[in-house]
Amino acid sequence: MHLPKPLARLIKELNKLPTIGPKTAQRLAFYIVRSDYDKVKSLADALLEVKESIRYCSICGNITDDDPCALCSDPRRDKSTICVVHGAQDIIAMERTREFKGVYHVLNGAISPMDGVGPDQLRIKELLERINSNNIKEVILALDPNVEGEATAMYIARLLKPLGVYVTKIASGMPFGGDLEYVDEVTLSRALEGRREL
Amino acid sequence: MHLPKPLARLIKELNKLPTIGPKTAQRLAFYIVRSDYDKVKSLADALLEVKESIRYCSICGNITDDDPCALCSDPRRDKSTICVVHGAQDIIAMERTREFKGVYHVLNGAISPMDGVGPDQLRIKELLERINSNNIKEVILALDPNVEGEATAMYIARLLKPLGVYVTKIASGMPFGGDLEYVDEVTLSRALEGRREL
Repeated sequence: MHLPKPLARLIKELNKLPTIGPKTAQRLAFYIVRSDYDKVKSLADALLEVKESIRYCSICGNITDDDPCALCSDPRRDKSTICVVHGAQDIIAMERTREFKGVYHVLNGAISPMDGVGPDQLRIKELLERINSNNIKEVILALDPNVEGEATAMYIARLLKPLGVYVTKIASGMPFGGDLEYVDEVTLSRALEGRREL
Repeated sequence: MHLPKPLARLIKELNKLPTIGPKTAQRLAFYIVRSDYDKVKSLADALLEVKESIRYCSICGNITDDDPCALCSDPRRDKSTICVVHGAQDIIAMERTREFKGVYHVLNGAISPMDGVGPDQLRIKELLERINSNNIKEVILALDPNVEGEATAMYIARLLKPLGVYVTKIASGMPFGGDLEYVDEVTLSRALEGRREL
């Protein structure tokens, strides 16, 4: 069937987004057709506004509309503890715990020779500069527990230890609510390896 | 965490779309942040273009950028056979079969007293007008096999039969590739009921 050109174009554009397959793209496009103009205008404006106003914090690399970001400029945050994460999304996850009171450092990815990402493509130099010019007590590595994340953690730990910084890594083990019977063997091995006395 | 306002706004807008939950909305918003401005502009333009140029065909109710739509104005389509569907999306599904050579009539929904949708809210009057002013041989009801779809089919059939039109309904039965062992009992009952001699 010959779809009207603007509709075919919208489906194609939506289909480029992550997690949006051709069927969802079609469903969303038909929803847009049925929606009020004002609603769609509001979505289109929100898309452009993000592109026009979102910047990266010059200190931690978090996304922000002010520089430095709300976290780096908050006097209540402990500037001597830096939590290193892959991306700005991880900051949201960490903040949701309400446990961490320090500041962050976004690497913008992980070391991955397969994808051609080496240490130079990450914000590691910026991390070293922060550590050299401030009085940093602890660097917490909150990186993904996978090959790339752990290679990145090892690399950073090796760089930082000679500087006399206390470097830690978040624990890897059974997820809360998980089921021993169904958990994968790597997770269970990690949980066993990381056991603590009660 | 205090998300930058434009980002929070975009997540809220994306979350309003069907099938997009809060997590997907967040993921999409971060993807937008990382994307080139031109890509995002292209998506925003496609959204608005659909709202500005998509119309409904004055004959069949299909969505179109020209009136009448490509199907109604195609001389190769058989104008004496009308396939009645709930929505324009169903036309795409029917056309994908490449089996139907007639024209369509979009009802814009189904009779559903629970949702306050009666026959007057659907394009049933327009269907009767088409049948009265043209030489229609067959009306095929291709409505969803559920309570609302079947109530709608019954209602339309009762209206059309006195006009001497041949009214049919698409078959309900086992889906192709389906498994007798796992199919629900209603589908299997329908398949049995609709059995044909070989």
